[in-house]
Amino acid sequence: MQKKIAVVLSGCGFLDGAEIHESVLTMLHVTKSGAALHCFAPDIKQTTVTSHLTRDSLGESRSVLAESARIARCDIGDLKKLDAKDFDAVIFPGGFGAALNLCNFGTKGADCTVHPEVERVINAFHQAKKPIGAICIAPAIVARVLGNKGVELTIGTDPGTAQTLEKLGARHVNKKVTEIHYDEKNRVATTPAYMLAQNIAEVDAGVSRLVAKIIEVC
Amino acid sequence: MQKKIAVVLSGCGFLDGAEIHESVLTMLHVTKSGAALHCFAPDIKQTTVTSHLTRDSLGESRSVLAESARIARCDIGDLKKLDAKDFDAVIFPGGFGAALNLCNFGTKGADCTVHPEVERVINAFHQAKKPIGAICIAPAIVARVLGNKGVELTIGTDPGTAQTLEKLGARHVNKKVTEIHYDEKNRVATTPAYMLAQNIAEVDAGVSRLVAKIIEVC
Repeated sequence: MQKKIAVVLSGCGFLDGAEIHESVLTMLHVTKSGAALHCFAPDIKQTTVTSHLTRDSLGESRSVLAESARIARCDIGDLKKLDAKDFDAVIFPGGFGAALNLCNFGTKGADCTVHPEVERVINAFHQAKKPIGAICIAPAIVARVLGNKGVELTIGTDPGTAQTLEKLGARHVNKKVTEIHYDEKNRVATTPAYMLAQNIAEVDAGVSRLVAKIIEVC
Repeated sequence: MQKKIAVVLSGCGFLDGAEIHESVLTMLHVTKSGAALHCFAPDIKQTTVTSHLTRDSLGESRSVLAESARIARCDIGDLKKLDAKDFDAVIFPGGFGAALNLCNFGTKGADCTVHPEVERVINAFHQAKKPIGAICIAPAIVARVLGNKGVELTIGTDPGTAQTLEKLGARHVNKKVTEIHYDEKNRVATTPAYMLAQNIAEVDAGVSRLVAKIIEVC
C-alpha cells in the first residue's frame, strides 16, 4: 500500500508565508520515498504581505491558499477538506506563515492561538496515532496544541524561543540543523531547518531525515 | 578556488514566474556541489499575475525582482549587476516567467524578443566561454540569443515547440526528463524538467545532472 502524506502550507515565501525551500524539499523527499503527496492550506487571507526584497510591508492582500498553490503547482486543497483518515501522516514546513497565518505565535508568543482548522488537523492525527512532522518554527503550533501532552520538539538554539515553547507545556530538545528529534509517545518528528541553517544543503539534510522518519513510522 | 554560479529567476510560481521546484533544486544542487550561489532577476513588473488556484488573472501588479526574492530568501541582485567576469556559469530555471518576463516567447513564439539585460548576460557568458544552463522552457531564451550559433538544446517532446526553436536556428535534441543535453561547442546544458516531468523527483533527476555538468565544465 502506497503511503499518503499531507503537507500543510501557509503561503509562499518565508517572511509572510511558507518557507519555500523547506516546503519544496519536503515534497521532494516524500515523492522520492515512493509515498503519495497532497498539499493543503487554509482558505484565509495572509496576516501580512512582505516584500522579500526590502522586508517592508507591501500593504497588499493575498490568499494563503492561492499563494501556497504556487509551491504546490495548483494541486492543493482547502485545509477544511483534510481528513486524517485519508492520510498516514501530516507535515508542516516552516516560515513566518506558520507563525502568522496558521497560528499567531509570531506576534503573541505563549499567548498564541491556533487557526481552528489547523488545531483540528493536529488533534485528529494525534488521536489516530498517525505521525506529525513540523519543521523550523512550525513546532510552535504543535507546542500550543499538544503542550498538554508534554510533547517533545526542536526549535533551534534560541533560549527565549525554547522557553516560550516550554511555557506551553512542551519539552524543548536541542538538536543540530542536520538532526531531528522524534517524540515516540506523541509520534511527533521535528527539525530546526532555517531556525539554524546557514544554507539550503543544511536544510535538506534535516528535512530528508525528518521525512525518512515519518515514512518509517507511518 | 570555489566556483561561483549565478541563477537567474523570473518571479515566483510557474504560471507567471520562475518554476519554484526547478529553482529550489538548482539552488540545492549548486550548494551541495560546494559552489557559491547568487540569484539575480530583472527589476521589472511581471507580464501577468496569475492565481495558481484558479489559473485566472488576478489583475495585480508584482515585481519580478521582489517575487524572485521569495525563492532567494532576500539574497538577490538586480540582473543589471550580473557581470560574467564575477561568475563561472549562469543557470536559468524554467516556468512561464522565463517565457513571459525574461522574453516574450510565451506569446510571440518565433517572433519573440529577449529582455535586453537577459540577452546581454547570455552573450557575455557565451563570449567568455563560460557555461550556460537552461531548464524546462528557458532553453527558448537561449535559442533566441544563440540560435545564430546553431545552439543545441532540449525543450521536451512537443513537435510544435521544437519546430519553433529550430526556426530560431537552434537544433532541438529529444531527451528524457531524467537526461540532459550538453552542447560542447556552445557550452550550453539543458534538461526538459516540467516540460515532461510527472513529479518533483523526476525534475530533481534532470536538474541534478544539469548542475553536475555545469560544475564539471566550469
